Amino acid sequence: MGFDQSFLDGVASSSPTPGGGSASALVGSLAAGLTSMVCNLTIGKKKYQEVSEELTKVLGESEELRQRLARLVDDDSQAFDEVMKAYRLPKESPEEKEVRSHRIEQATKGATQVPLEVMEKALRVLELSQVVAEKGTPNSISDAGVAAVLAWSAVEGANLNVEINLSSLKDETFVKGIRTKCEGIKSRAQMLLNEVLLLVKSKI
Amino acid sequence: MGFDQSFLDGVASSSPTPGGGSASALVGSLAAGLTSMVCNLTIGKKKYQEVSEELTKVLGESEELRQRLARLVDDDSQAFDEVMKAYRLPKESPEEKEVRSHRIEQATKGATQVPLEVMEKALRVLELSQVVAEKGTPNSISDAGVAAVLAWSAVEGANLNVEINLSSLKDETFVKGIRTKCEGIKSRAQMLLNEVLLLVKSKI
Repeated sequence: MGFDQSFLDGVASSSPTPGGGSASALVGSLAAGLTSMVCNLTIGKKKYQEVSEELTKVLGESEELRQRLARLVDDDSQAFDEVMKAYRLPKESPEEKEVRSHRIEQATKGATQVPLEVMEKALRVLELSQVVAEKGTPNSISDAGVAAVLAWSAVEGANLNVEINLSSLKDETFVKGIRTKCEGIKSRAQMLLNEVLLLVKSKI
Repeated sequence: MGFDQSFLDGVASSSPTPGGGSASALVGSLAAGLTSMVCNLTIGKKKYQEVSEELTKVLGESEELRQRLARLVDDDSQAFDEVMKAYRLPKESPEEKEVRSHRIEQATKGATQVPLEVMEKALRVLELSQVVAEKGTPNSISDAGVAAVLAWSAVEGANLNVEINLSSLKDETFVKGIRTKCEGIKSRAQMLLNEVLLLVKSKI
């Protein structure tokens, strides 16, 4: 099973999109895919009948998260392009300056929401990876661990993209609110990663 | 710029390949791609003339790493399939048992080398991400940070795949040697990640 090199080529190119925000969303989607795989390798096996119902629910949710995070790959690039468009608006007259400044602020707020959603969704993937590490087939225990590691890195990577957008915003109330949310997500993600890695290493 | 969903579908499916090993290699390749992007956005700009020569060298190396890690995505799946093939060998007679056991040991050693190389290559990507975080355009500082985060997670994810293979090997000298290498790579990766994230956050 090969994969499409053109996305990787696009990342490496001198175009700023797709960049770190899109890459973080893609890695979150990969983590969700690994979580789904552990479910698929467990559900329906006689030995795991007791957990099949629960893992079927997990699978439904991890597949939704995988699709959503895959869409956020493109959303992030589009939101960045909107910011660039706002920066290119004319800035001769005071009126033009005001319109431009307002549009930059609005576009940057929009560009903050995408990586924030990546953080929220990737945190949920991390929670699901803990369930599959506990209850999935032990044959796939390393896959559950990789799912957790990748979900954590999607949270951290997306957070850097939230932060760089916040750094150019004027609306301090907005900035404070988002930053508080991010701190909560990051500390929960760090705790979960530590827990899942301990569990995975004890089962290997 | 979209990307090929079929690889993600393959990860999520009930086939054990591509799994966590391939996903870790892909994430390492993505990290290399982001490192290349920061080079490409810096080289040739007047303001960064002083670092253009150094970043051109970094770019050459990060592009080689990106290609190599992309190949390791498929190599990992193939190495896993070889192990599965060995497990399916007949085990009726004592001779068959011995041949099978030997082939499993050999194939598992082979399957250990792939994620070990992913760890080595991803560690090098992490080193290069530090150079671009220091010397690349500050407009791309979050991309340099995401490159570091993803390279670290490729090291950690691949390490879980090394470990699960080591756990079924009989050759204790081999196991000890690989484990010592892994510990060195992991502790250096953790140190580098902390350093790069500190630097990135100070520049955002």
